[in-house]
Amino acid sequence: MATPRPRGRRPKSAGDTRTAIRVAAGRLFADVGLDQTSLRALARAAGVDPSLVLHYFGSKERLFFEVMRATMAPDMESVFAPSRGRGEIGERLVEAFLMRWDAVGDGSAFSALVRAGMTNERVRELLREFIESDIRRRVAARIGGSDVDFRVGLVATQLMGLGFARYVVHLRPVAGASPGALVAAIGPTITRYLGRPLAAAPHTPRGPRAGPLGRPPSP
Amino acid sequence: MATPRPRGRRPKSAGDTRTAIRVAAGRLFADVGLDQTSLRALARAAGVDPSLVLHYFGSKERLFFEVMRATMAPDMESVFAPSRGRGEIGERLVEAFLMRWDAVGDGSAFSALVRAGMTNERVRELLREFIESDIRRRVAARIGGSDVDFRVGLVATQLMGLGFARYVVHLRPVAGASPGALVAAIGPTITRYLGRPLAAAPHTPRGPRAGPLGRPPSP
Repeated sequence: MATPRPRGRRPKSAGDTRTAIRVAAGRLFADVGLDQTSLRALARAAGVDPSLVLHYFGSKERLFFEVMRATMAPDMESVFAPSRGRGEIGERLVEAFLMRWDAVGDGSAFSALVRAGMTNERVRELLREFIESDIRRRVAARIGGSDVDFRVGLVATQLMGLGFARYVVHLRPVAGASPGALVAAIGPTITRYLGRPLAAAPHTPRGPRAGPLGRPPSP
Repeated sequence: MATPRPRGRRPKSAGDTRTAIRVAAGRLFADVGLDQTSLRALARAAGVDPSLVLHYFGSKERLFFEVMRATMAPDMESVFAPSRGRGEIGERLVEAFLMRWDAVGDGSAFSALVRAGMTNERVRELLREFIESDIRRRVAARIGGSDVDFRVGLVATQLMGLGFARYVVHLRPVAGASPGALVAAIGPTITRYLGRPLAAAPHTPRGPRAGPLGRPPSP
């Protein structure tokens, strides 16, 4: 066993410090929410000086969003990885969404995100930015087309609503459903939003694009 | 012009009183939210005694939910009315949803509902009750089947997410889209959740049910 390190400020690498801050923040945000988490409490939980939190993350809101993005991001990579063989993109995305959020604090992380989004304009802004540029860029690289913004927006409505029903309202048939049942039911919605023709979409001139995203529509 | 009535407590019919309370509540809840609205402020805005608010509505939470339901309810009647000729059920439902919430305080009413749902367990309970029994009953009368709970839950995820993206987060492509574009894009999702076979739904034995709800699946 390693010798226990002394408590208080202790030397750490930059990577260690960032990780310590992120882990402590993840716990505090999920437990008490963004608004109730002070910079001081955050720094104390991470065992660092408050100035380091600002140094590495800029603001409490940005740190909050970093933590949320870390929750969502890694599987995004695999969902949008090109030439991935298995299944349709919609099913992969719903599965990745559920695997991430189901795992984190029994849905409390998603609640924390929604609560912060409700009360904090800066968080709303970061969330918009994440969807409208981060996610959009990945989707655009896969499907192109002039209505990609609208399509990404549609995907966001369905996934945010899934999270809201499952983790916040705890709507019984959604909170109690198996990930598999939700993937099977909601996956095709996402696939259609990303790849199938949308009747009377706001921008019409598009080429066929169902090809790269999966099988043709099932009957 | 009618003679102005004296301010303060004034005799009203029960119907007048209920309406006055509902109207005042709708304004206050949308402006400052459920938690910031005191029973006393509510009664003052409605020009009635606080005891009357409790007499007619039981609790502040129940009044809040009555107001929200009044926002949603009337068009539900027409959406679920049997033998209605025009369009598919999904398109009618998305259109009714947008017509209602777009009209009320520029989306602030929906925000108030979400905020209250986040912070108040009693409101969450009433919201669950509304979806799991009110809406469920209407849907069950139309489509039957053993998986009606799951289907209603799926519809709730899509509509709550639409409201969240359009009225709370103000995601540009969703907040800026015309109702028509959203109806065309999201309507078929709802129709599928309510009437089309869901691959690997949690309960499988069902008869065909696309018939009463609209056209067969488009290619």
